[in-house]
Order: sequence, then structure tokens, then C-alpha cells
Amino acid sequence: MISAHPVQAPSAPGWRHRHLLDVVDLAAWELEMVMATADEMATILARPIAKVPTLRGVSVTVLFYEASTRTRVSFEVAARNLSADVVNIAAASSSVSKGESLVDTVRTIEALGADVLVMRHPRSGAPYLAASVFGGHVVNAGDGWHAHPTQALLDLYTLRERLPAGGLRDRKVVILGDILHSRVARSNLWTLTAAGADVWLCGPATLLRGFEAVARALPAERRLTVTTDLAAALRDADAVMPLRIQQERMSGGLLPSLREYAARYQLTAARLRAARPEALVLHPGPMNEGVEIAPDVATSGRSVITEQVANGVAVRMALLYLLTGGRPTTGADG
Amino acid sequence: MISAHPVQAPSAPGWRHRHLLDVVDLAAWELEMVMATADEMATILARPIAKVPTLRGVSVTVLFYEASTRTRVSFEVAARNLSADVVNIAAASSSVSKGESLVDTVRTIEALGADVLVMRHPRSGAPYLAASVFGGHVVNAGDGWHAHPTQALLDLYTLRERLPAGGLRDRKVVILGDILHSRVARSNLWTLTAAGADVWLCGPATLLRGFEAVARALPAERRLTVTTDLAAALRDADAVMPLRIQQERMSGGLLPSLREYAARYQLTAARLRAARPEALVLHPGPMNEGVEIAPDVATSGRSVITEQVANGVAVRMALLYLLTGGRPTTGADG
Amino acid sequence: MISAHPVQAPSAPGWRHRHLLDVVDLAAWELEMVMATADEMATILARPIAKVPTLRGVSVTVLFYEASTRTRVSFEVAARNLSADVVNIAAASSSVSKGESLVDTVRTIEALGADVLVMRHPRSGAPYLAASVFGGHVVNAGDGWHAHPTQALLDLYTLRERLPAGGLRDRKVVILGDILHSRVARSNLWTLTAAGADVWLCGPATLLRGFEAVARALPAERRLTVTTDLAAALRDADAVMPLRIQQERMSGGLLPSLREYAARYQLTAARLRAARPEALVLHPGPMNEGVEIAPDVATSGRSVITEQVANGVAVRMALLYLLTGGRPTTGADG
Repeated sequence: MISAHPVQAPSAPGWRHRHLLDVVDLAAWELEMVMATADEMATILARPIAKVPTLRGVSVTVLFYEASTRTRVSFEVAARNLSADVVNIAAASSSVSKGESLVDTVRTIEALGADVLVMRHPRSGAPYLAASVFGGHVVNAGDGWHAHPTQALLDLYTLRERLPAGGLRDRKVVILGDILHSRVARSNLWTLTAAGADVWLCGPATLLRGFEAVARALPAERRLTVTTDLAAALRDADAVMPLRIQQERMSGGLLPSLREYAARYQLTAARLRAARPEALVLHPGPMNEGVEIAPDVATSGRSVITEQVANGVAVRMALLYLLTGGRPTTGADG
Repeated sequence: MISAHPVQAPSAPGWRHRHLLDVVDLAAWELEMVMATADEMATILARPIAKVPTLRGVSVTVLFYEASTRTRVSFEVAARNLSADVVNIAAASSSVSKGESLVDTVRTIEALGADVLVMRHPRSGAPYLAASVFGGHVVNAGDGWHAHPTQALLDLYTLRERLPAGGLRDRKVVILGDILHSRVARSNLWTLTAAGADVWLCGPATLLRGFEAVARALPAERRLTVTTDLAAALRDADAVMPLRIQQERMSGGLLPSLREYAARYQLTAARLRAARPEALVLHPGPMNEGVEIAPDVATSGRSVITEQVANGVAVRMALLYLLTGGRPTTGADG
Repeated sequence: MISAHPVQAPSAPGWRHRHLLDVVDLAAWELEMVMATADEMATILARPIAKVPTLRGVSVTVLFYEASTRTRVSFEVAARNLSADVVNIAAASSSVSKGESLVDTVRTIEALGADVLVMRHPRSGAPYLAASVFGGHVVNAGDGWHAHPTQALLDLYTLRERLPAGGLRDRKVVILGDILHSRVARSNLWTLTAAGADVWLCGPATLLRGFEAVARALPAERRLTVTTDLAAALRDADAVMPLRIQQERMSGGLLPSLREYAARYQLTAARLRAARPEALVLHPGPMNEGVEIAPDVATSGRSVITEQVANGVAVRMALLYLLTGGRPTTGADG
């Protein structure tokens, strides 16, 4: 019989996780390890030919049950830069639409030779189910409202790189908008508070529901403030991250209208003047310009939105390397 | 003018088929040749880096007019393991939806440089039409109810590997369920009877229609029994292959309901006790667990369902190699 | 910060365009340069392994907002033949469907590492907007009714190769059918008149609207005739290119019915007898056989339709090379 896992590379030295399901699993020193590895990957990306043979022979399957451009392509590019083989499966055009169970799909993907399964799923927790049956490494690329660990790690990387010495310690970071439905907010509040930031969650009360309890449940040394008061949130902020407002949330009665949301919570240049002069603007994308963010803010000198995308490739290269162990990244172009 | 077929590799020595359209075309010694070549490919898959340069420069186009995960990805992985280039075309997002004829699509694919065309089509016989105009090699990846040759070959490979010495000779193999609409059943009954197995087709009478005549038309030395009696079929069976019951068949009045089908024909652990103790369970996938197969049977130690998927990659590598001739597979990693 | 453009290769020596948005931008000597480079690429395509390392490390993103097989795959194959990495984004399954602006999508694609953006868009002018923000090279693969430069260049290449000495000078070339909605007609009339051809546009009056003015606006030395008289157009023609008639145009009241169109304007063998005996038949595809072209004409010895497809790969390889500068194409197989 054919071994379904000829490669099954060990993780990188010192790395102790087989899967990346949630940032909550990562200790402070592990976050540092991801950041340092991403730095190395960034130097590879800066070469004329941004390709190394590190993961040659490793097979990465990208299984997305939700539409996505940036995250899917980011993983695909990251894997190819490391010379891994990539298989793309979009749920809409696959057997998935024939009602096969997720467990059977994952077993099939493993039998087809996948070493790494990068998955996005609309149900919170789906990657845990996948990890329970998959013989290789599972990377959560977003599950329901629950977690989006690689997004939080690339946001952390971007902020550390752009903030002056001292990093995130005591920096005021505001996450703005639809916190309730956001896996990005849930993952970021964990990594940012772990890095010592003073995190504020701000939005209409209906979209903050339950986060007071989250704030109370955090370890005492972590700082998280939940407020509907935009002016208070933005005052002296070091970084602001408005989240995408999804049209489809309107029908749930959580927001009166996009227009009213924009009137009260859109990140505009005028409102941003309350923040520090050098305050950074992030956005996980895709943006609804004119809704949660004003177009001139999205493209201003403070915006690091395209840097987030570029850093995403480096961070995902780092994670693929750490999880699978890879071969030395110092090798010649393969 | 550019030659549309710079490669047009000759077939492997001894191999006499330009296309793989139906298993009926394969003589017994050719089935052996596929099996032996798949064995070689399995040793490549067992290497740390499962990649050989055998088909470097060969261009494989995978053209699917029906949704599929396992078969499409299996061909894609098989081709890449042999270093071929792969182009994927899903009918839904292609010019095909603009009403272009199949013949024109095939001519276009050839002019774009394809050496091998792997195709799945809802109409029986479509690959024959393609082969009549395509200058390279056509592989039928499933056409209507007619044939699914690579599935039958991977099933044959899986059974031979798992059955004790003596192979399939006189082994009782049961194919269970919707035989009528199944290209898997039609291809398997040919290869399995060719290998000497005692093949039983079992299901509701409405889903066996016409197969009595098939049994009578087979050469005398081949053994095929058609029955609605599940207990008789399973008695002392060496292998059982329940087929997917497709929801959409219900509307045709061929089955009263999924629930009634499951009550009468689902392969359960209790029913399987009538088979030999070491009887194998196969399924071509995707499974409807709880309909044609009980979940505990699907994941029991008798199940070789994920082995089928893994073997499928080896068998498809073998076929791509045999059809195109390839270069020696003993070369270094390329 | 990671440079989003580690490669950003200079254009080939002598080539002065960063983007290919419209053939109108190309001078006569630049058309010659494309043709000569395509000749070199055709010799690569004729090799047993049609692959050179020229664009290794160059990342090509193919972003299509309209369904397509031949053009998308042609660019994909062209890029891979030059060893570039290819990322495919189909609008239907991407964030594009979440309402992200084109500008944001393009910025994201650049940040993900793309050096070349090949795009097709239903709105005329969309590639200009993309080029205004993209740091790499934009190739227009068709925008609305406006332009389809690579199609015109491959048509030019095909005609030059097949017409006897003297090339297109004074050759009568007829473009037939739905000129009004055709980006292929608009791009071809420019390149063909530039090459000295006597170009005739022919079709029902409703589908020629505005082209009399186009003819008057051309430089005096260019020859363009607009007529509804099919017999006059075909008389002594050297080449005829019927265009696809799109079913969806019928609803606009521009045509009474496909049947009536076919009766009056279908290119049939009988009608083609008015042309020169050796007249060539081209079609940009996909064809509606039995509507704008009779099946026997499409497959006759005069048809160069599959040559157009094959030449398209060579021409697109040439353009990717010219735009990005590439490395020498004489290198060994990489």
C-alpha cells in the first residue's frame, strides 16, 4: 500500500505545534519565533528571484468553502515561493457540493498526497474537526466568526515593523466596526494584548455584544476596552483597524443602514485627527470604501494596507516552514 | 506554422493504445502491464520527494464538464508527480458555456499545446468524439453512464494488493446499489470478470434494469450474477462495493426514498457479517454516509476506501506514462 | 518592509512600453518587433520540450472578469513555457464578488507579488485604470467593446505567415458580422490597416453603426471600407474573418433572429467562392457553427482557425518577454 504521507516532515526545531488552528495556542516566545522566521522570509522575497527549494516535495492543498482572493492567493504564492506543490479546491466546483462530509473530504485529500491542508470554512471549529482526522498539518485560514490566525500574525508583524522602538508595548490599537461577526477581531485581540498593546474594540452596541465578558475574562495583565464611543477610542490611538461591514448583516437588524453606519463610525480623515499624528491605518480587506473607511484614508500615507498584504506572504511562508520543518532556507535557488 | 504537437511522445514499449477510452479495449496482459507499472509508480510515491522528471515537457489538460474533486485532483497530482504541466478547465467557467461545440473545444485545446486530454463529460461517448479529432492522447475520466476506466483500474489494483495469494480468481465481489446509472459498475464488471472474479450486481430491480442481458452477453468464462437479494449477494463475499445513491435519481421514480433504500440496501455492519470475515469494503466516493453505507462500515478496518484514493494516483501516473511513453522513470529528481 | 516588486524587470532592449493596453499605441516598427519575437518563440514551441527559463521568478496574475477558455489558457501556457509563475483569479469565485473596487483588487494583486497583470474586463477602459495604480506591467486581454490587442497581434502574425511574399500590403481582408460590439474588430482594423491591408467591415447596418465615422477618421493612407453588401465585401478577398454572433445581442433588437442573420451573412462555401481561390478563413473563437460560419468552412483547408490558437501562444510569449525584459531565451532548458 502507498503511504499517504511520504513526506510528513517534522516541524522546525523548537516548534511544537503540528497544526495552526488558533493564535490562542501560541505562547509569547512562539509569536516571536513566527516573527523572526517571517523576517527571514521577507529577505527571500526581496531577492530578484523570490524562490527557495525549502519545501520541495511538500504538497499543500488549499480548500476554501468561502470566496476569497487575497488569503487564497497569499497561501498559494507563499507555498510556491518555497517550491511546494499546490492544489486548489474551491467548494463550489467540487464534490463538496455533492454532500460529502468534511471528514471524508479531508481523508480523501490526505490520500491524494497532501502534507498541509489550508482551509477556510464558514463554520467555527471546522478546522479542529479536520485536524482530528488529517495525518498532516492543518492551517486555519478562517473559520466562521472564530479565528483567523494568519491574519492576526500578519497584522502583528506589520505593526511591529512600523511602530518605533518599543514595539506594541502600551500602544493604543483600535479595532473598529463589526466586532461581533469578526474572526479577525477575535484573533487580533489575543495577539495584540499578548504583545502588550492597549486594545480598544469600538462599534455600535449591537456589534460589540458579548465582548465586555471577553474583556473581563482576559488575564489581568492584558488590556482590552470595549466602547461605543468612537471619539474616546480614537483619542491618541497609535493604530486603527476598521473592519469590513458586510451588507448581509443589515438584514439581521443589527444595523439600521450602511449610510447610518458610515455617518457614525466611518474612519474619516477628520476623525483620525484625534489619533496620534503618525497613527497607522490597517484593514484586513476587502474594503468597502465609503462605508467603514473613507477612500482618502485608505490611500493616505498612514495606511499600511498593502504592506499587510505583502507581509501576509512572508508570514504564511514562515508558518508553512515552521509547521513542516522544511529544509534549510539558505539553499540556492531551486 | 507552429506544430501543435512538439512532444507527441510515442507510447511506452509494448503499449499499443493511443487513448484510454474504455477498459473493454484492454486485453488481460495489458491489465497486467497497467498493474505492474502502477507498482513502480507506488514506489516513487513512497519516496521522500515523490517527483520524477518522466513527463517533463508533456502538457496535460484536464477538462471536466461535471463537478469532481477526487478524480480531477488525482489526475492533477499524478501529472505533476511526473513533472508534466497541467492546465485545468472547468466547463462552468469556460467558453464551453458560450455554446462552443465539443469538437471545437478539443481542437482549441490541442492548438494550445496539450499532449494529453483528460476529460469527464455527462454524455456517454463524448471522449470518443474528442479522440476522433484530438492529435494527442485522450483519457476518459468518466462519460455519462458509460465508462470510468481509471476507477476500475484503481479498484482492480486495490483488490489485487489486498487479497491474499491467488488474487481475484474465484473471489466473490459484490457491487451494490444504483448499477443502472453507474459508469463505475459498468467498467468494474468488465475488469473484475476479466481477472476471474465472481461478480455480483445487487440492488433494487429498477436499478438493475438491462443487466441480465449484460450478464448473458458476456463470454462464457466470465461470471456475473444479477440479483435483488442482498443476503444472497453478501453471503461469503470477499469484497463489497456500495455505490453512491444520488438524490437526483429519486425524482425519476426509480426509488421510493433514500430512507427506504437505506433500510433495504445500506451496507451495515450487521449485513456485512454474512460476508467472509476478512471481506474488504470499497467505495468510489463521494460517499453518502447513512444512505448506501453505514458510517462505522466506511471507517472500519475492512474499509480500503482511502487506499483506493491513494492507489488512484499511482494508477493514473502509470496510465499517463504508458500512453505518452515518457522518459525512464529511474532518473534523478528533476 | 517587503518590496512588492523584487523583479520589476526592465523591458527588452528597444521596447519602450511598460503596458500593452491597445494596439493603437504600437508604431509600425514595434509591430515588426512583436512579429520577430513571436517567430523566435515559435521556434521554442517547436522543440521537444517547449520550455525556457526566460521568465523564471516572474509572477504573472491572470485576472478575468469574463468567462474564457482560449485566451486565459493561452496566457497561462505562454507564461509557463517561459517558466513564469502563474496565479489565476476568476472574478466569480473571488473577493471581487464582495464589491471590492478594481483599484483595491489591483493593489492587492501587486502586494501579493505579481509582476505582470493580464486582465479581461467587461468595461472598456478598465485596464487603463489598473495600469494607473499597478507597479508592474498590465496586459489587456480584452476590455468591453474597446480592444483585444493580443488577438489582433496573433491575427496579424497568422496572416503574415500564410500570405505569400509581400505580406498584407494591398491584401483585401474582410471582417464580417457584429462589428459594433467587437473589440476584436476594433483592434484588428487598426493593425491590419497599419500593415497596408485593404480592410472591409461588413454586416447588418445595425451592427456597423459608427464605423463610417471611424473610417473617415483614419489617416489618409489607411484603407477601410464599411458596407452591408456581403457580395461586394467577399469579391476577390484574400482573407475573411467572421465574428461570433452573440445570442444575447438579439434581445437588444439589433438583429431579428439568428436564423435570419445566418441566412444573410453566414460565411458559406458558396459565398466564399467569390473570394480568391486561396483566401484564408479566420475566426477569433469561440465559434457558433451554423450561425456566423458554416461547419464545412470552419474545417476546410482554407481555415487557419487552429493556427490562430497555436500562434496566440507564441505571440503572448513574445509580449510577456518584451514587456518584462526577461533573460536571454537561448538558455538551456530550466
